[in-house]
Amino acid sequence: MFAPVYFDYNATTPLDSRVLEAMLPYLTQQYGNASSRHEYGRAARRAIDEARQRVAHAVGAHPTEVVFTSGGSEANNLFIKGAAALLPKGTVAISAIEHPCVREPARQLVRTGWRLREIAVDAECRVTSADFFAALAEKPAGGATLVSVMLANNETGAIQNVVQMAAQLAAQTKSTSALFHTDAVQAFGRVPVDFRALNVAGVHAMTVSAHKIGGPKGAGALVLDKRLELQPFIAGGGHEHGLRSGTENVAAIVGFGLAAELAVAHQQTQATTLRALRAELEAGLSTLGAHVFAAQTDRLPNTSYFALADVDGETLVGRLDRAGFAVAAGAACSSANPAPSHVLLAMGIQPALARGAVRVSLGAGTTQQQIHDFLSVLKTTLGQLKALVAEA
Amino acid sequence: MFAPVYFDYNATTPLDSRVLEAMLPYLTQQYGNASSRHEYGRAARRAIDEARQRVAHAVGAHPTEVVFTSGGSEANNLFIKGAAALLPKGTVAISAIEHPCVREPARQLVRTGWRLREIAVDAECRVTSADFFAALAEKPAGGATLVSVMLANNETGAIQNVVQMAAQLAAQTKSTSALFHTDAVQAFGRVPVDFRALNVAGVHAMTVSAHKIGGPKGAGALVLDKRLELQPFIAGGGHEHGLRSGTENVAAIVGFGLAAELAVAHQQTQATTLRALRAELEAGLSTLGAHVFAAQTDRLPNTSYFALADVDGETLVGRLDRAGFAVAAGAACSSANPAPSHVLLAMGIQPALARGAVRVSLGAGTTQQQIHDFLSVLKTTLGQLKALVAEA
Ligand SMILES: Cc1ncc(COP(=O)(O)O)c(C=O)c1O
Ligand SMILES: Cc1ncc(COP(=O)(O)O)c(C=O)c1O
Repeated sequence: MFAPVYFDYNATTPLDSRVLEAMLPYLTQQYGNASSRHEYGRAARRAIDEARQRVAHAVGAHPTEVVFTSGGSEANNLFIKGAAALLPKGTVAISAIEHPCVREPARQLVRTGWRLREIAVDAECRVTSADFFAALAEKPAGGATLVSVMLANNETGAIQNVVQMAAQLAAQTKSTSALFHTDAVQAFGRVPVDFRALNVAGVHAMTVSAHKIGGPKGAGALVLDKRLELQPFIAGGGHEHGLRSGTENVAAIVGFGLAAELAVAHQQTQATTLRALRAELEAGLSTLGAHVFAAQTDRLPNTSYFALADVDGETLVGRLDRAGFAVAAGAACSSANPAPSHVLLAMGIQPALARGAVRVSLGAGTTQQQIHDFLSVLKTTLGQLKALVAEA
Repeated sequence: MFAPVYFDYNATTPLDSRVLEAMLPYLTQQYGNASSRHEYGRAARRAIDEARQRVAHAVGAHPTEVVFTSGGSEANNLFIKGAAALLPKGTVAISAIEHPCVREPARQLVRTGWRLREIAVDAECRVTSADFFAALAEKPAGGATLVSVMLANNETGAIQNVVQMAAQLAAQTKSTSALFHTDAVQAFGRVPVDFRALNVAGVHAMTVSAHKIGGPKGAGALVLDKRLELQPFIAGGGHEHGLRSGTENVAAIVGFGLAAELAVAHQQTQATTLRALRAELEAGLSTLGAHVFAAQTDRLPNTSYFALADVDGETLVGRLDRAGFAVAAGAACSSANPAPSHVLLAMGIQPALARGAVRVSLGAGTTQQQIHDFLSVLKTTLGQLKALVAEA
C-alpha cells in the first residue's frame, strides 16, 4: 500500500492504536445505550463516566464541567449560541483569526441583534492588547459581552495570552454579564492546558476535540464553569446536563478519554521532539528562501506555516501530494475555499504571499528521515516549478 | 462473560460485524480529514461520498438530499430550529407522542415567539385525523406552519399515516409556508421507508439514525428536499452543504452507509421473522394477563409494549435484568425520568397502568428460544412479585 508521509496533524491525527483497542469492546459486545437501565446500559454509562473523569483530569477540570459533544465545531456552537440565548443582546467579540466554527456562529448572532466585533492581531498572529482593550471599552450599556479567543491558532500555531485577556475582561466588567470562551482544540495535547488556571483567571468555557490528539473523530467537549447556564443546543432526552441530547457515542467518548490521558502524559517529551524536528525543517526551509509565518512568537511546537515568493500554495501542495507528502495549503480543516487565508490577511500579509501558504504540522509518527526527505523533495519540486515558469 | 439476552433494539442495536469491518480501515490507516486536499483527505472524501449514495439509495432519496449529522437528535434539532429560523413565526405542530428530541426543540421555539400545538392521538397511539385537521385550521394569518409527526413511535411501535397527513397539509396550505417533517428513526429498517414517495406526498424532511439499524452510534442524517433552505445548525467550515460543519466522522458515516444498505436488503425477511416471534411472545404475555399497548394498530414488527396490572414497570425491568434479560421500562432512550410515559398518557392510559409499562424490542439476534426463556422467567418473576405483595 502507498502510504504518503503524513504532515497534516493539525487537520486530524491518526487514531492511536491503544485508543482503538480501548474503543473496540464498545463497537462489539458492549453496545448498550447508556440511558438504558439494564446491564448493557450500565456498562455504557460506566464507560462514559470513566472517560469523563479522564478528560476532566487531562484538562484540569472537574468531571461535572465536561460536556461531551460530537467534536470541536459543535462545542464552539454550543457555547456561543447557548450563552447568547440567555444573555441580554450585546457584543460578541472574537479574534480575527478564529476558526470558522467560532466565526460563523458569531455571525449568526448578528442576525438576532448582537453586534460583532473582530479583534485585530499583529503581524505575528498575536491578538493585540490595545485592540482587545478597545473592543471591551466599546461595550454598549446593558448588553452582555461574549468573548472568544483561541488558545492556539490552527494555521500558524501562534499561542495567545488568554489568561491575560480573560483577567482584563474580568477586571473591566466586574458588575456586568461578560463571558470568556477559548477554543483549545489545537492547543490541547501540544502545550500545557489547565482549565482550572484559566478559569481562575476568568475563562468560563473551553473547547477541545478528540481527533486532534490521537483520538477518534466524533467526540469533543465543552469544558464549562459549573456556575454557567447555557441554553441546550441539541435539545431532547436531556443527556449531558441537558445541554447535548442524543444517544452517546460511547466508543468515541471512551477513545477520547484515553487519548486525552495519553496526550497529557506525553505532551512534554512530544513537544521537545517535535520542536527539534521543526527546527531542522525550518532551517532547511530558510535555505530555500521560505518565509515562515509567526516565527517570532510562541507557537505550537509541531506547526510550521510558510510561503515561498512566487510559488502558489495549492500548486505546491498538489505536487508534494503526488511526491508522497501530505501537507496543507491555507486553512486546511475547513471546506474548499480558494480565497487566501483569513488568518494571514488579518496578520497583514500581502495576498500574493498569503496565496503561497503551506502548512506542515508534525505529530507522534514524524521522524527525522521524513523531514530530510521532505526538504529534498521540496527542493526538487521548487526547481521544477521554477523551470516551468522560466519556460512560460 | 455474562451476556444477558438483549431485547432492547429500539434503544440501540448491536453493531453489525460486517459494518465494523467496513469501518475499521477508517479507524486505522485511512485517518484523513475529508476536507484535506491530499491522498488521505481524498480517500476520506470518497468514502463519505459512497456512504452518502448508499444511505440515499436505502431511503429513496438523492445523495444531495442527505445531510449527515451525529445522530437522530441532532437531525431533528437541525430541522426544527433550522427551518423556524428562516420562516415567519407561526405554529409548530407536533404529535403528542414525539420523541423528546422533537418536543424539546419545538418547546424552545415557543420562547422565540412560536406557538406550540400538540396533536392528539387515540387509544391506539394513532394521530387523530380530526385533531390534525383542527391544528392546521388554527393557523394564524401570516405565520408559517411547521409540522413534525413521526413515522413510527419508539415506545409502542405504532405507525402513523404520514403520507395522508402531509397531503392534507399540502392541500390546506397551498399558498403559505408550511413544512412537514417526519422522524423515521424507528421506522427505517423495520418497515419500508421511501423518501421520494413521502416527498411527493408533501413531506419535506426526514430523520434517520445509524445506531438503530445495526450501524454505529455517532451518525444520522436529515434527508431534506433540495428546494428547502435551512439555517445552518453547527455553523463553521461549511461541511454538509453548509448545514452541519465539523470534521466528518468518516468511520461512522461509512458504517451508516453499509448498515442502511443491509437494513433495507433484509427488511422484509427480518420483518416476517420478528413478527412471528412477537406473536409468540404476545400469546404468552396474554396468558399471563398482560395488556399490550397499541395492539390494534399497525405497529413495527419488532416492538411489544405491555403492562401487567399492579406490577411496577421499573421493578419488573430490574428483576428481568438480574435474571438475564435486557428490556426497557417506559421511554427508554431518553434520560432518567420516573414519570409515566408521555406516550401512554397521550393515549389516555391510566397512570397506574402506564407505570407498569415494559417494552420488549426484538432484532436480528433474537431467537425463538430466547422468547420461550423470557416467558418462563417472566412467569416466575411475576409469581415472586405477587408473593412479595401477599406477604406485605
Ligand atoms: C482551532 C480549531 N477549532 C475548532 C476546530 C473544529 O473541531 P472539529 O473538527 O472537532 O469540529 C478545528 C479543526 O477542525 C480547529 O482547528
Ligand atoms: C423516535 C426517535 N427519534 C429520535 C431518536 C434519537 O436518535 P439518536 O439516538 O440517534 O439521537 C430516537 C432514539 O433515541 C428515537 O427513538
